[in-house]
Amino acid sequence: MKKYYAGLDLGGTFVKGGIVDEEGNILVKGKIPTGAERPYAAIAADMAQLVKDLAAQAGLQQEQIAAVGIGSPGLIDAENGTIVYSNNLRWENVPLCAAVRERLGLPVCITNDANAAALGESFCGAGKKYRSMVFITLGTGVGGGIILDGKLFEGYRSAGAEVGHMVIECGGWLCTCGRRGCFEAYASATGLIRRTREAMEAHPESAMWRLAGSLEKVDGKTAFDGMRAGDAAAARVVDEYISYLAEGVVNLVNIFRPEAVLLGGGVCAEGETLLAPLREKVFPHLFGGTEYAPCAIVKASLGNDAGLCGAARLAMGRE
Amino acid sequence: MKKYYAGLDLGGTFVKGGIVDEEGNILVKGKIPTGAERPYAAIAADMAQLVKDLAAQAGLQQEQIAAVGIGSPGLIDAENGTIVYSNNLRWENVPLCAAVRERLGLPVCITNDANAAALGESFCGAGKKYRSMVFITLGTGVGGGIILDGKLFEGYRSAGAEVGHMVIECGGWLCTCGRRGCFEAYASATGLIRRTREAMEAHPESAMWRLAGSLEKVDGKTAFDGMRAGDAAAARVVDEYISYLAEGVVNLVNIFRPEAVLLGGGVCAEGETLLAPLREKVFPHLFGGTEYAPCAIVKASLGNDAGLCGAARLAMGRE
Repeated sequence: MKKYYAGLDLGGTFVKGGIVDEEGNILVKGKIPTGAERPYAAIAADMAQLVKDLAAQAGLQQEQIAAVGIGSPGLIDAENGTIVYSNNLRWENVPLCAAVRERLGLPVCITNDANAAALGESFCGAGKKYRSMVFITLGTGVGGGIILDGKLFEGYRSAGAEVGHMVIECGGWLCTCGRRGCFEAYASATGLIRRTREAMEAHPESAMWRLAGSLEKVDGKTAFDGMRAGDAAAARVVDEYISYLAEGVVNLVNIFRPEAVLLGGGVCAEGETLLAPLREKVFPHLFGGTEYAPCAIVKASLGNDAGLCGAARLAMGRE
Repeated sequence: MKKYYAGLDLGGTFVKGGIVDEEGNILVKGKIPTGAERPYAAIAADMAQLVKDLAAQAGLQQEQIAAVGIGSPGLIDAENGTIVYSNNLRWENVPLCAAVRERLGLPVCITNDANAAALGESFCGAGKKYRSMVFITLGTGVGGGIILDGKLFEGYRSAGAEVGHMVIECGGWLCTCGRRGCFEAYASATGLIRRTREAMEAHPESAMWRLAGSLEKVDGKTAFDGMRAGDAAAARVVDEYISYLAEGVVNLVNIFRPEAVLLGGGVCAEGETLLAPLREKVFPHLFGGTEYAPCAIVKASLGNDAGLCGAARLAMGRE
């Protein structure tokens, strides 16, 4: 009999869910508002209901769902199925797996959302053909997930793989984690926006003013758009941003030597405009060169589905 | 029947070897000059002879040696048993395992020398009680070895775990690898000596002049000795050195979240004078704190025997 798995991607605003088969095909997917201000039990009940609704929508009996996986923000105790701490959800020691399991009578497992996305890309996205990869999301922060020998690497008590919190510039920009100079501070969309604003303030003549409208409306696209419009200050912002991104990527390749680095998150919408110069800045600096142990640098392919695919993949074998 | 393994630690000056049992006890050990200027076949012959001599010394028949492991400097192709490139030995694509195997009729396997040392510490040294650890050697360079779930992590084609070549200071001190600002440039004994000399030149009154005799005679102990003698400039050198070391250690803990970080190499002779302030600088900056997933910071315990113990451990199960 064919087996199906439910993947849930818990976010601060929405819970996304999907039913996935063993080959990584998404049969159905959907999303509901998280209502993050409510007690966790209410959210767990909605998550369980979402699984039931998705199963029905896919024409499956609930019994045909073998197990459920969850990707969640925050520090996750995978072994005990709890969210130790989530800034995003304002949760501490929430036994989410037990709460969802209770309502469904199915095995439920959990990992960090960035880990889930990495696992999803590895299972059925751009990472499919690599045995090992480092997945980096360039969004509000810099998230990361590590796949080694086809399996998710989480570190002791699932507290590792925090690749955004690697200092690349001692004493540099303040990071949300309290350290100065973290990769996240420079390579996140937030870091790019900061750099863009600084350049605009230094260059009142820049085309970026016209493109963005105001400092408040600057986003991760402003500098790239300015560069395309021929603006020199914007081109410098992009070049500096990619240089910092490259430093972090080289570090991670030297440390893990994965077969590929996958980049996801909002900034990656730029595609080759970002990736081509990034490769040029990364490859010459890899320890031991690129001939003996090459490393691909590619764009993640699943977008918003990565988390639910990875959560479903996590559930496989847990039934 | 009890099994025994030979571990060989190939260096630019000496080859160290030992016979190790399955529990990690060293029965006998010895060393011979490498004679690195000779063709590799001559060195391989000496390495094979060393194994025979050590076996005889241990009162064992050669047949009682189940397999041989080698730790070697350079970039190693573990799968094919070759040294892809070693700056130290001036070797390129040397099939060392085959050359040693031919002379002994025993299975021979190989890894990088830092990996071997990490495996040795994990097998029978200070890393014994941890399932996962990051081993960092503070010597001429900064070497590293990663143990995950009790096993050596080497990366794709064994080219990973180059933790010394992680930039912590963008555009900073030039590293031997060609990048600027690598952890190795700051945290190696070489980096400490550079910092010590700079402080001496800036402070002609420093006690370090008396302690070292001259700039040329400065070593990794000079600043520590100066600090112990109450010299303010020396104390600043030590503090700055440990601060940079801490940045790299925090990075590696955030990335791997091991149960322990083991420090080895010459600078570690300082013991708690180094480790106590290091812990104070590391612990407050670990992502997610230290309560949920604590990480020990300890001194490696095997010294020069780590490499041969790890090489022997590598050979276990390869017979």
